[in-house]
Amino acid sequence: MIYLDYAATTPVRDEVVQTIQEALIESFGNPSSTYRIGKSTKYLLTQARKSLANLLNVSEHDIFFTSGATESNNWAIRSQAELARKLGKGNHIIVSAIEHPSVMETLVFLEQEGFEITYIHPNSDGEVTAAAFVKATKDQTIGWIAMAVNNEVGSILPVFELGELAREKSLWFHVDAVQALGHLDWDYSELACTSFVGSGHKFYAPKGIGFMVYQPWDKQMKLTPLIFGGGQEANKRSGTENVPYVLGMVRALELLAEEKNSILEHHNDLQNYLYDQLNQHQIAFERNGNPKAKVPYIHNIWLKDLMASQLLILMDLAGIYISAGSACSAGSLTDSKILKAYYPETPERWSQSIRLSFGKESTKADIDKFIIQIKKFIERK
Amino acid sequence: MIYLDYAATTPVRDEVVQTIQEALIESFGNPSSTYRIGKSTKYLLTQARKSLANLLNVSEHDIFFTSGATESNNWAIRSQAELARKLGKGNHIIVSAIEHPSVMETLVFLEQEGFEITYIHPNSDGEVTAAAFVKATKDQTIGWIAMAVNNEVGSILPVFELGELAREKSLWFHVDAVQALGHLDWDYSELACTSFVGSGHKFYAPKGIGFMVYQPWDKQMKLTPLIFGGGQEANKRSGTENVPYVLGMVRALELLAEEKNSILEHHNDLQNYLYDQLNQHQIAFERNGNPKAKVPYIHNIWLKDLMASQLLILMDLAGIYISAGSACSAGSLTDSKILKAYYPETPERWSQSIRLSFGKESTKADIDKFIIQIKKFIERK
Repeated sequence: MIYLDYAATTPVRDEVVQTIQEALIESFGNPSSTYRIGKSTKYLLTQARKSLANLLNVSEHDIFFTSGATESNNWAIRSQAELARKLGKGNHIIVSAIEHPSVMETLVFLEQEGFEITYIHPNSDGEVTAAAFVKATKDQTIGWIAMAVNNEVGSILPVFELGELAREKSLWFHVDAVQALGHLDWDYSELACTSFVGSGHKFYAPKGIGFMVYQPWDKQMKLTPLIFGGGQEANKRSGTENVPYVLGMVRALELLAEEKNSILEHHNDLQNYLYDQLNQHQIAFERNGNPKAKVPYIHNIWLKDLMASQLLILMDLAGIYISAGSACSAGSLTDSKILKAYYPETPERWSQSIRLSFGKESTKADIDKFIIQIKKFIERK
Repeated sequence: MIYLDYAATTPVRDEVVQTIQEALIESFGNPSSTYRIGKSTKYLLTQARKSLANLLNVSEHDIFFTSGATESNNWAIRSQAELARKLGKGNHIIVSAIEHPSVMETLVFLEQEGFEITYIHPNSDGEVTAAAFVKATKDQTIGWIAMAVNNEVGSILPVFELGELAREKSLWFHVDAVQALGHLDWDYSELACTSFVGSGHKFYAPKGIGFMVYQPWDKQMKLTPLIFGGGQEANKRSGTENVPYVLGMVRALELLAEEKNSILEHHNDLQNYLYDQLNQHQIAFERNGNPKAKVPYIHNIWLKDLMASQLLILMDLAGIYISAGSACSAGSLTDSKILKAYYPETPERWSQSIRLSFGKESTKADIDKFIIQIKKFIERK
């Protein structure tokens, strides 16, 4: 199996499986129970929160564990949008046009509720700029939203710059950091944002666990729960805590923190090798997005005149797993909305592009096999 | 360790740990991916949904996997309440006064949003009756809510009767079936309700997984997502699916279905033994709730003149884990709201009562050790 779709999801690493298994067996007490086996589970949860706070360099009191980034994005955006409107601050939100569906669909819902949304498209250089956010800002603007790294193209958005500007303007600023977390050597204390989110299954932990960091710069902007109940997570996110997955997720990030620089170097090597090989084999391609502002582990490639959907079937038969678009939209086999946002005038790109994404186990041999299949596909045409 | 708090949470059984571990290692593909390792994960999810549908005797298309019963209760109630109001049906909801916080706190939120809530208290016989729901119903009433089995007292509520009446009156009817599922030999196709929910960690699966069954009797009453995004779960509950826990949860219910009658008999034996022993040892007690309408695996006992909080500490030191109130409210050490609803005029009961709940591994020897500690506690007074 050649797996080159780490941006869709990652395998759960052995150490994390081990951590989860141990917790499933040994730490079953309800963290809300007052007796010892409850308290010991609660203690593990508290320690995990502290470790995560250290890794991200944020306050442990600002971390809320959730069922994943989708819930986290929904929650952060709805809480801030609805409260800002209630406080009479306005009803206008500005967002990049290349966000994940969990952000986009939340905004569609908010539009139905009377909010006004402005979408910032990538410019002709393939960049979503802070200047465009500033230009679109008006009296009624309450918040900005931008992802750290785009999931289909790998572009890095100017979230550090956006954050400084949002803080100056007293706007809330939400960052979907799913594709950055654990992979880029960022200090999240330097990221000026009121909320950001992460998802375990993008960094070698399971699906079904994630977190939200909430750190408003206006005391009035209290976090409103999306899920009410027994008062877990400082009374902000109820539901008996999934301690095994929390421990697994934090363990996964700890392990990545130790290896981060060498993995990043590894990804850079693979990136260079990929494009060298495509060139050497004289495959006609263009990179989607601006190559100067992107991560080395997500690649979106326009293979001119090759139908991505057909190529994907051939790859699948050869045991090579890549994608066109994201996994969420892949199921529906429609053209990528992200590529449409980048290249509104080049429809060929929408259906002739594929995404490769690397992980820590990816190798040059994987790339070789991928290249062989492209060549086979070209020859069969 | 003597664990007599299965209503708070259950240990994850070995077979379920095994199922989860295998899926964590082998089924990591994203179910939304179009290639084989995505499709094979999707297939497992589909099969699990079918198995669950068979076990519950409901349609697989009506099942939605969630992060637990808290999310499920929030979702089912908010979707139905908000849509019914939008459709101009009214804004009044009737609910038993002994519901779980995930129901109660959702209703507090809805009250702030302008809904009117009527709480039905247990009558002097310790029963929440269907007649009381009917009596409270008026033109503006849109829905009824009742739990199947109360989590602190173990009372069985008349949800089958309520369901028939609600259907006649075209009211939506939501049932929190968390403490019944897997433990009582119910055919859920006979439970007339528009929604009901279950939670894995109450039947030997982990915390962080649950489901909602939604089966409206009015086509207008479409389910509105609480969490928007990539369109998983028939576009109703987005977020990449936690397949290992789904498989584990369904496996746990399958295993219980095989053993259900023998476990229920076991619980009946333990119940008889518990009260025989309390009587034999001349311990002054009264059962909370109506003993004629309750499950044999949850017991709430008023130990006259004994402070429950002090007894619990002694039990904890002796390695016996029981609770006063539920785990969610236990952490806060306040008097049980449920017992207040049952016995508004007997404050002694609120602080002098404990909950014992049995599971499949509970034994008479566990009860003996529990009795010994009560006697020690009485002697020390």
